[in-house]
Amino acid sequence: MKKLLLIATCALWVSSLEAQQKTIAERLGYPKNTKLLILHADDVGVSHSVNLATTTAMEKGCINSASIMVPCPWFTEIASYVREHPGMDFGLHITLTSEWSNYKWGPVTPSTKAPTLINKEGFLYSSVDSVKQFAASTQVEEEIRNQVRRAIQFGIDPTHLDAHMFAVVRKPDFIKAYIKVGREYKIPVFLAREMERELNVKLESLISKNEVIADSIVTILPDMMASNPAAYYAQTLRSLPVGLTYFIIHTAYDNEEMKSVTKGFTDWGSAWRQTEFDFFSSGECARLLKENNIQIITWREIRDKLYR
Amino acid sequence: MKKLLLIATCALWVSSLEAQQKTIAERLGYPKNTKLLILHADDVGVSHSVNLATTTAMEKGCINSASIMVPCPWFTEIASYVREHPGMDFGLHITLTSEWSNYKWGPVTPSTKAPTLINKEGFLYSSVDSVKQFAASTQVEEEIRNQVRRAIQFGIDPTHLDAHMFAVVRKPDFIKAYIKVGREYKIPVFLAREMERELNVKLESLISKNEVIADSIVTILPDMMASNPAAYYAQTLRSLPVGLTYFIIHTAYDNEEMKSVTKGFTDWGSAWRQTEFDFFSSGECARLLKENNIQIITWREIRDKLYR
Repeated sequence: MKKLLLIATCALWVSSLEAQQKTIAERLGYPKNTKLLILHADDVGVSHSVNLATTTAMEKGCINSASIMVPCPWFTEIASYVREHPGMDFGLHITLTSEWSNYKWGPVTPSTKAPTLINKEGFLYSSVDSVKQFAASTQVEEEIRNQVRRAIQFGIDPTHLDAHMFAVVRKPDFIKAYIKVGREYKIPVFLAREMERELNVKLESLISKNEVIADSIVTILPDMMASNPAAYYAQTLRSLPVGLTYFIIHTAYDNEEMKSVTKGFTDWGSAWRQTEFDFFSSGECARLLKENNIQIITWREIRDKLYR
Repeated sequence: MKKLLLIATCALWVSSLEAQQKTIAERLGYPKNTKLLILHADDVGVSHSVNLATTTAMEKGCINSASIMVPCPWFTEIASYVREHPGMDFGLHITLTSEWSNYKWGPVTPSTKAPTLINKEGFLYSSVDSVKQFAASTQVEEEIRNQVRRAIQFGIDPTHLDAHMFAVVRKPDFIKAYIKVGREYKIPVFLAREMERELNVKLESLISKNEVIADSIVTILPDMMASNPAAYYAQTLRSLPVGLTYFIIHTAYDNEEMKSVTKGFTDWGSAWRQTEFDFFSSGECARLLKENNIQIITWREIRDKLYR
């Protein structure tokens, strides 16, 4: 009897170890060394320009996933779009900051219940540093939950959560709250190795083996945007590593509205977002994905195969 | 002694009667039969398109006064503009409704303290009827006060208060709250004879003799906008009556942003606002004002001469 129990325990242990050692590709049913890619647009809901450019790049271009900022002024419009396009891949861009100068928003939680999340004008802080310094993690947790609840109230079934300006993944207590709320709703949360450096925590210590950590993040940075964005995009897609890569993209039209939203900012500004829109709507993007044996996947696939 | 007292009382009574019988023009120092006009743009703060078009029409065209919707997404931008242009005539467009379909806002008062002002999604009601039916007048009063306080917090010294969609002047308790808050801050509130019909109250019973009631309101309505707006504007300015007339105007650019804000609406929609912008920025408007002996005045003049 004891021997049988030992064998059974060992078998379980080996099977659990195998599950842990399986790549994300294998867990999703792809060959072990597949290059998996999510082409992900951030900041949907912030403005009409972002909503229109992003949904256009999803319908006609290469963007295949996006995340919504629930507290922002154009949330209602994108919620309406999501209800009319139920198969598309929309998650929530958990938002703890309001970073532009003359275009602001507050939390979803009533201000009386979220005093540590807001500045003296009632808006979310402009900087991630202020969030780290002043926000109580209990209020952060409640705000994350309220953003999810509000999205659901508006008919959105979120495919994932991710982190606007990475604010919610920059402090151990915040990332724990983010993972916790994701689990409550069986929604995968975006996690990546890069986050471990600032957190000084191994992500494995926070999650179960069924959950997913992206192997790499790629995103254009100011120097490449200023010099040769086309070369950056092409090189990035040609040299994509095996494993799950998360391509973080910001799409908008460089129009009067977006210029004013981002007034005073060059990096991640209006022209920047038009450049990203142009590339990720182009035939060049589609060609590079095809030529380089890249397997596009969605958060919906991850959610439905591994989290539900 | 008694006789002296009687004479003094009579003198006071006669002087008070004279003050009441003086026209607004006389009280402001103009000849009795002057045609006074405020060319007033509503809805500033609702969108960037409205902000840019209205400030342009004020700087280069005929618009000489405007009012700001404090709860709206682009309030921060217009507050910044007002701080940079301290002499211009900006009041507050007291806002109790959020009338567009996919672009919404809530009250300034925290939602926990204004439950009768909001719908189940936390936004102000779409219709004035809902405001009349559900809003508690104590919460209306507090919301008006909070809109004024927030404007002051953002560096705006409001020249007047007026009423978005006339919501705040359609019920006796609401209009009393509006007049009360105006008095607290020594800010004139827009009142006009037309309001008496729905209220079933004489405005004189609500105000003191020092306060002002506009003699007439003019504003373009859907049938004229659909047929011949240029003729309407010209005819209105040519036949302007003696007394204080309030011209209610809605200026915006008919661009992608504004089309989406007003999606589904023709009346007071995006093209409507472009038509108003075009006329009130034109040389034709300036010429008509000059040719018809019209005295343009501002709310600032009324406020500083009669209320402070």
